[in-house]
Amino acid sequence: MSADYYTDDVHGHHEYLDLGDFALASGFTLPGARLAYQTAGTLDEARDNAILLPHMYSGTAGFMQAFIGEDRPLDPTKYFFILPAQLGDGFSSSPSNTPAPFNGGAFPAVAISDDVRAQHRLVTEHFGIERLVMVSGWSMGGQQTLEWAVRYPDLLERAVPFAATSTNPDHCTVFCDLHMDALRSDPAYDGGFYAASTDVHVGLRRHAQAFALMGASSHMYRGEVWRELGFSSRDGFVQGFLQAYFAPMDPGNLLAQAAKWKSSDVSSGHGGDVTAALGSITAKVTDVAFTGDLFFPPEDVRADAERIPGATFEEIGSVWGHFTMFNLREADTAEIDAVYAAALAG
Amino acid sequence: MSADYYTDDVHGHHEYLDLGDFALASGFTLPGARLAYQTAGTLDEARDNAILLPHMYSGTAGFMQAFIGEDRPLDPTKYFFILPAQLGDGFSSSPSNTPAPFNGGAFPAVAISDDVRAQHRLVTEHFGIERLVMVSGWSMGGQQTLEWAVRYPDLLERAVPFAATSTNPDHCTVFCDLHMDALRSDPAYDGGFYAASTDVHVGLRRHAQAFALMGASSHMYRGEVWRELGFSSRDGFVQGFLQAYFAPMDPGNLLAQAAKWKSSDVSSGHGGDVTAALGSITAKVTDVAFTGDLFFPPEDVRADAERIPGATFEEIGSVWGHFTMFNLREADTAEIDAVYAAALAG
Repeated sequence: MSADYYTDDVHGHHEYLDLGDFALASGFTLPGARLAYQTAGTLDEARDNAILLPHMYSGTAGFMQAFIGEDRPLDPTKYFFILPAQLGDGFSSSPSNTPAPFNGGAFPAVAISDDVRAQHRLVTEHFGIERLVMVSGWSMGGQQTLEWAVRYPDLLERAVPFAATSTNPDHCTVFCDLHMDALRSDPAYDGGFYAASTDVHVGLRRHAQAFALMGASSHMYRGEVWRELGFSSRDGFVQGFLQAYFAPMDPGNLLAQAAKWKSSDVSSGHGGDVTAALGSITAKVTDVAFTGDLFFPPEDVRADAERIPGATFEEIGSVWGHFTMFNLREADTAEIDAVYAAALAG
Repeated sequence: MSADYYTDDVHGHHEYLDLGDFALASGFTLPGARLAYQTAGTLDEARDNAILLPHMYSGTAGFMQAFIGEDRPLDPTKYFFILPAQLGDGFSSSPSNTPAPFNGGAFPAVAISDDVRAQHRLVTEHFGIERLVMVSGWSMGGQQTLEWAVRYPDLLERAVPFAATSTNPDHCTVFCDLHMDALRSDPAYDGGFYAASTDVHVGLRRHAQAFALMGASSHMYRGEVWRELGFSSRDGFVQGFLQAYFAPMDPGNLLAQAAKWKSSDVSSGHGGDVTAALGSITAKVTDVAFTGDLFFPPEDVRADAERIPGATFEEIGSVWGHFTMFNLREADTAEIDAVYAAALAG
């Protein structure tokens, strides 16, 4: 890996829950597993003011800090925020930080349900919380949010997934296959046993190109909205934004996360019946889609919302498509804050 | 190359126009260049019943034969059809058939305008035609159609581009960069100097995955419309349709075509002023977009049509997106025939 990337200096202070020998959905037991997390605000004595904010693909626990602020809906003077790191993020157990023989390309397959079960232990056993005010996240954070709502219906009052669906849309799976292959396509990837992640920079660049294609809408490119980020050309944006973003990351970590994304499915406890799984949700759900999202199109998010009892469907219109939650436009962030304000008022 | 792919047995009978030492837009002169073509129907004595039908990326001259038929709008008992092969298609001068030192990876860059100038010689010098009834094609065939309408306004009465634009949309250029890199990503590509195209099968598969992602709409995958083609799984469709389609092709030929696609621009004769170029068109234009087309979205096609004097904009709604013109549904073909009927009646 890039030597100084997966550090608290870059990503903020993490704490860790020891998961011990953690049994994965795959049947594999990961020895010495750990769950990294961050917090914000203070848990009150009644332990009833906690909000869980899992993060998206390629992110780390701190990502959702961007939505927390005094005088904002996610107010740390009012709520206690738990920001768990995904398995595979580089802080929680990951290909890049797990000792041999389970390191790198030998890291076992993990699932969204593994994240959620680990987070459940953090919430209930470590913090002693019996009920969360809300679970919310974007993209893979939204996949975890939906898994929470199905798996632990008594444990959360509200669920607000952004740009995520109950199972991965088939078109999005074709995309996952493409960007996962992009990382592996670099001969330096070597089955996941490279000496340094920077050796795999060609694979990381190829993977970035896939996100340049699918992460933003055609409207964004048509309007050259990348100029708002200070770039002077389309290619400069692809290189300076997407390639630069992914360059320091560990390809094996990205692949561990992507495999979870691709195989996400909330119905494992309902015999594969997604409609039954969604129908069992008791939390108040606000299911949010982004206009022009090429990963999780509004049609797919809406189809979920229609199967969740009492759910509200919201579509946020932005030129950024799936990347709307990167806070690239103040108006996008304001719309997301408005969704949180309405959800927490309900 | 796949030894028996670029043959008349597979693609129908070709004839050839010797272009001699052909000066390319790049400034390079390609020695001993040739233009392959097919024909259908009979040129009448007045030489005023000819229709030119250039083909799309990855196709060959014969592709547009699928739209020609008695009792159909493109009726060979009424019209004479000229179906030119693109430079780089494997029959016209291409990386795969040009002798050293201009073979393979050393084949010079060609442009849409080179195709159109070569076709102009075929139409005017070889066939002695002074005016075409229509020029029409899909995708890169549409790019050539628009180039014809701008470059030779006196030579065509009608232009009917399907799913193509005057310059490549920026989002589509990000896609071209991705699928071109996919071919080159295979170490066996070796700068274009592989022994056999089948050696580059991994690159060809990777390139096919990009077309699986972008060629069809998310609606197609959502509805599992691939079942109509006889496949029993999404992955079976990707492998059996896309990978199988591209597998026998020559990667260098695909790259020669893709570079033209990416750099397409009708404004070269108008100092880079696309609006002026489109405004100079005198042919009757029917500019056709496909709903859900991720290469050339309807918004971009419409923006062209609004700048072409008297142009009609049509949008054909199909779940197949850009692939609508592959004739995968009878309803799609019927809609395309209807566009041709209306255009030729006007």
